[in-house]
Amino acid sequence: MADARAPIFDKVALIGLGLIGSSIARGIRTYGAAKRIAASDSSADVVARVRELAIADEVTQNVAEAAKGADLVILCVPVGACGEVARALAPHLAPGAILSDVGSVKAAIVAQVAPHVPAGVHFIPAHPIAGTEYSGPDAGFATLFQNRWCILTPPDGAEAEAMRKLSAFWTRLGANVETMSASHHDLVLAVTSHLPHLIAYNIVGTAADLEEVTQSEVIKFSASGFRDFTRIAASDPTMWRDIFLNNKDAVLEMLGRFDEDLTALRRLIRTGDGDGLFTLFTRTRAIRRSIIEQGQDTAAPDFGRAAPREE
Amino acid sequence: MADARAPIFDKVALIGLGLIGSSIARGIRTYGAAKRIAASDSSADVVARVRELAIADEVTQNVAEAAKGADLVILCVPVGACGEVARALAPHLAPGAILSDVGSVKAAIVAQVAPHVPAGVHFIPAHPIAGTEYSGPDAGFATLFQNRWCILTPPDGAEAEAMRKLSAFWTRLGANVETMSASHHDLVLAVTSHLPHLIAYNIVGTAADLEEVTQSEVIKFSASGFRDFTRIAASDPTMWRDIFLNNKDAVLEMLGRFDEDLTALRRLIRTGDGDGLFTLFTRTRAIRRSIIEQGQDTAAPDFGRAAPREE
Repeated sequence: MADARAPIFDKVALIGLGLIGSSIARGIRTYGAAKRIAASDSSADVVARVRELAIADEVTQNVAEAAKGADLVILCVPVGACGEVARALAPHLAPGAILSDVGSVKAAIVAQVAPHVPAGVHFIPAHPIAGTEYSGPDAGFATLFQNRWCILTPPDGAEAEAMRKLSAFWTRLGANVETMSASHHDLVLAVTSHLPHLIAYNIVGTAADLEEVTQSEVIKFSASGFRDFTRIAASDPTMWRDIFLNNKDAVLEMLGRFDEDLTALRRLIRTGDGDGLFTLFTRTRAIRRSIIEQGQDTAAPDFGRAAPREE
Repeated sequence: MADARAPIFDKVALIGLGLIGSSIARGIRTYGAAKRIAASDSSADVVARVRELAIADEVTQNVAEAAKGADLVILCVPVGACGEVARALAPHLAPGAILSDVGSVKAAIVAQVAPHVPAGVHFIPAHPIAGTEYSGPDAGFATLFQNRWCILTPPDGAEAEAMRKLSAFWTRLGANVETMSASHHDLVLAVTSHLPHLIAYNIVGTAADLEEVTQSEVIKFSASGFRDFTRIAASDPTMWRDIFLNNKDAVLEMLGRFDEDLTALRRLIRTGDGDGLFTLFTRTRAIRRSIIEQGQDTAAPDFGRAAPREE
């Protein structure tokens, strides 16, 4: 039997060294997922910082150089930049190489990237469901993907061996791998991620604009619920702009449902329907329990923030 | 000078021993805020459990007994129960005693409680802005109020000495005390607490009802944003039903603003206005920074849930 910890790839090229790219680099090293790491970023500052952090074997602003000879290339740039980056590095991809990404939308990425993929290169889009509200190469860490899900959205007829290797790579980094179509992915993420972010951005904006309640009061008394939304609404603006522009239909569809439900909830309040409110508020508790049982969140009160201190 | 750690009250009666009541009991003991604690709860199970936990000196189902001889009585029951409880214990309040509460709405509590308050008793409503998503006497802890705000909404002409003592009490439990009118409190909390909870309950309900995305998928991939909302939507249903029924006007007003902003945000997405989205998403980041700077939330990524583990 092969050594379970043998490297899965010879050379992985990471294009974009933000939170996700730099976490993948650290994960590859920590879990021995590849022999070598090439890192490329369009920002000279990021390139310099990645060199200082020493989390890759080669660091360059030149995507072609990074991609050369790589058997896995992962685009870790905002969704809106994927097409352009793919175009630039396509001629330098080795035959048999796997091209993947980490974007939060998939159908739009397929539309933008697939036309550039040379014959003999396996394009398998991926989305690791992991992150924090911080950005940049310093924000990454090797365990980011532990016990998180990574969704692969292979095109029809994707090569089995390429799928196997990419799955093994993400499993090595600690993720559980799931496969689905790009369009289903976009619908699932619209409700589990894009709509929550949209709502969070919106409510933080609403609170900032009130005349009757000052911004200083909103900040002071934020521990009563509001502060949770501000964490999500502190996520990277470029990344999220691109997500909403590139998953417009699914997001607007989910927003329509949310709005319909909100109208019904508003009516319960206006008419003073206590039983209706109680029923909804009880039902939502059960979902929280399932999320904790399945290891997707901590059971600690207040996410552990309010843990009783030593007395 | 008086000993800074001298008890502030002789006997504090806590009516309702859920998360907040039981945290106050523990806080009184830990920080020596009163000589004796009487605890009363309408539930025989809670009374038995509080006896086992030994967090009060007297434990009874009888509010009159608990209130007798107390120089501070705090109602820690859901907002909708405050009027009834006040009516029951009013005849047993000692002249000069302070009657307070911890409710998340204030104008409705004043309307329900004030008519029952006997002459010579100082009624000073209060709201400690603290809590977790857990309920019941086991969920409480002594440090819950540390570095949180407690808002007092004294009626016109409240006695200065009563205000001083109640402020000192909350300060002893670790809170910062602020004073404002009941109606302003209800507006501030509508935006910092009630609207966020409403939105969270709503989105969790929306996600549970989809046909195209299964509940199992929603749970599995919840780490992408959704899970944060489920924590808030796991809060006590009775408490929250009462809040929405008793702060209807302010909640509907804030919901109207939220809805207006959401319509504008939806238009940005529909028209593909990337600059508009980027501007909003950048602005909301600044508010998060202020909340962290003012000690109202942790700066740890993902509230500390995703802290890098030992490798």
